[in-house]
Amino acid sequence: MIVLFTDFGLEGPYLGQLRAVLAREAPGVPVVDLFNDLPPFNPRAAAYLLPALAAEFPVGSVFLCVVDPGVGSDRRAVVVEADGRWFVGPDNGLFAPLARRARRLACWELTWRPQRLSASFHGRDLFAPVAGRIARGMGLPGQPRPLQGLVGGDWPEELREVVYIDRYGNAVTGLRAAAVGPGAVFRVNGARLGRRRTFAEAPPGEPFWYENSNGLVEFAVNSGSAARQLGLAVGSPFAEED
Amino acid sequence: MIVLFTDFGLEGPYLGQLRAVLAREAPGVPVVDLFNDLPPFNPRAAAYLLPALAAEFPVGSVFLCVVDPGVGSDRRAVVVEADGRWFVGPDNGLFAPLARRARRLACWELTWRPQRLSASFHGRDLFAPVAGRIARGMGLPGQPRPLQGLVGGDWPEELREVVYIDRYGNAVTGLRAAAVGPGAVFRVNGARLGRRRTFAEAPPGEPFWYENSNGLVEFAVNSGSAARQLGLAVGSPFAEED
Amino acid sequence: MIVLFTDFGLEGPYLGQLRAVLAREAPGVPVVDLFNDLPPFNPRAAAYLLPALAAEFPVGSVFLCVVDPGVGSDRRAVVVEADGRWFVGPDNGLFAPLARRARRLACWELTWRPQRLSASFHGRDLFAPVAGRIARGMGLPGQPRPLQGLVGGDWPEELREVVYIDRYGNAVTGLRAAAVGPGAVFRVNGARLGRRRTFAEAPPGEPFWYENSNGLVEFAVNSGSAARQLGLAVGSPFAEED
Repeated sequence: MIVLFTDFGLEGPYLGQLRAVLAREAPGVPVVDLFNDLPPFNPRAAAYLLPALAAEFPVGSVFLCVVDPGVGSDRRAVVVEADGRWFVGPDNGLFAPLARRARRLACWELTWRPQRLSASFHGRDLFAPVAGRIARGMGLPGQPRPLQGLVGGDWPEELREVVYIDRYGNAVTGLRAAAVGPGAVFRVNGARLGRRRTFAEAPPGEPFWYENSNGLVEFAVNSGSAARQLGLAVGSPFAEED
Repeated sequence: MIVLFTDFGLEGPYLGQLRAVLAREAPGVPVVDLFNDLPPFNPRAAAYLLPALAAEFPVGSVFLCVVDPGVGSDRRAVVVEADGRWFVGPDNGLFAPLARRARRLACWELTWRPQRLSASFHGRDLFAPVAGRIARGMGLPGQPRPLQGLVGGDWPEELREVVYIDRYGNAVTGLRAAAVGPGAVFRVNGARLGRRRTFAEAPPGEPFWYENSNGLVEFAVNSGSAARQLGLAVGSPFAEED
Repeated sequence: MIVLFTDFGLEGPYLGQLRAVLAREAPGVPVVDLFNDLPPFNPRAAAYLLPALAAEFPVGSVFLCVVDPGVGSDRRAVVVEADGRWFVGPDNGLFAPLARRARRLACWELTWRPQRLSASFHGRDLFAPVAGRIARGMGLPGQPRPLQGLVGGDWPEELREVVYIDRYGNAVTGLRAAAVGPGAVFRVNGARLGRRRTFAEAPPGEPFWYENSNGLVEFAVNSGSAARQLGLAVGSPFAEED
């Protein structure tokens, strides 16, 4: 299974061009669109979403990860194998939390380059062919170099920032609920948010936090938009009360 | 064939997580995204769209239907078999018009629960595994209870309200064109709308109604937005002139 | 492979209904969503995007192309075979640049009509079944009439207009970069734009043009929106400096 994890947005031809490459390089392999409207040009936000979402995919899945503001510069292209799942993309921090939390980990720098490599679309020209090749069971192309460290190795274990705002205005954070207790209270732009188990438990209009279905702390308002009510955007920080 | 019919929106990871479960539970079964931006938290609007759209899918299709504002409460989870097609989702009215119009009908309450059941994402944790199982031809899990009645049994036969507004501002209603004559005239927020067969038949800027490609009455304006021009939103009522 | 190229938008049930027809008519044939938010009702803009995108698909691919403001009128339905790829859709200019640039070309008028043909959704009722049939290797249905000319035969070789604006505000044009030199300078709404190879080469905030990954001239601003900064919309013209 090939899993798409990008900031391409759903519009335009970009995803379709990726899918065409995958259909050619790995015919018959299912392609799952996991997340394609990641915060644009923001590898840090995406990085803390990836491990929360990847864990439920079967071992052997290949994640094609493209949040790549440095495309065309000399940032490295990497492949990461973490606990039996494969990740292909740029070395800009996108894989840092995932790598840190892995029990089994191997990283390579991709030195192979395709015959045609556009300056602006390495997702299509470089990462997709490599992902297709791995998904077909043919391993890495070229002479991949084992890597010791990835960009982002010094990033925090948990990210106390908003990393995604969904269509309802719920604000997903980079903090795992398991890292705090159920009694945790957060200060979010001046408001004080306690935990609810479900939306239905909260009175309409009252902001709260809950453990979302991927194990992350999420800020929400029953029948309302937490983002609007609390003035949140991707990157907004918050703090835990003592 | 598994057919997705949800209010998840196209953004975020939610659809992708559904698709991952389906790929695992029913490998090789085609998954068709039918409608994923249904009016949010509005089972009533979705309910009148479902039978208009489901009829053209082959017998044996399994519809995974998630418009579920009561997730986490004690609303029932149900499976409906209507004229050879299967429907899995919450019992909140979503299946009421479909059930009423079916020639052959059976309903069950799902009592089976998965090992992991998040409080907020029954689409992924409960409904998708059940849909996958049915699509694989393995029947319902657990000890499903036959049901006599569904929520929404007292809802009207036709819904004289707007149920969806598309990207062009056309306003789809819950009223079947076959239930009124081609000479019907509607009062919509003060305007008087007669029927046209096609957009090209109407002078630009003039609002009209037509039978859309799914057999429903739809309000439109040639080269314009009926929603904006007539002040329509999902839920806006209208009346037929005598 | 069947490739979708439409102005349906991503919302609503329309794409899903197409996909259902394709799953029925050409089971097992991969369907790739290439571009579904083409500028609405604008066959001219779409026409100059199509050849830039189609070239990288394998020979034998079938493109289902629906940008069809004249649906319900007497515009012709056509099939075009260009350099081994197939294109099905309305004859309204959508295939004109593609046909002009083809080395091998054949065109037919579709005279076959399905039993059910709605007035407003020929994509589902007419074009999708034909595309499915071709993708299955069964040729054209009915008695297709060879065509000498297509609508749009007098359109320009290159279109010096904006044809698409992406989510970042980059403005794609209908002009191929190969048709101008790398030293070309464009006048765009009063601004003067020189070429950069990549975004990273341009100072933040400075508008420039580059050859995008499909070979077209595209206007962009590093860390900004070219559309907003230069006041561009689909159809905006521009000129090359001498």
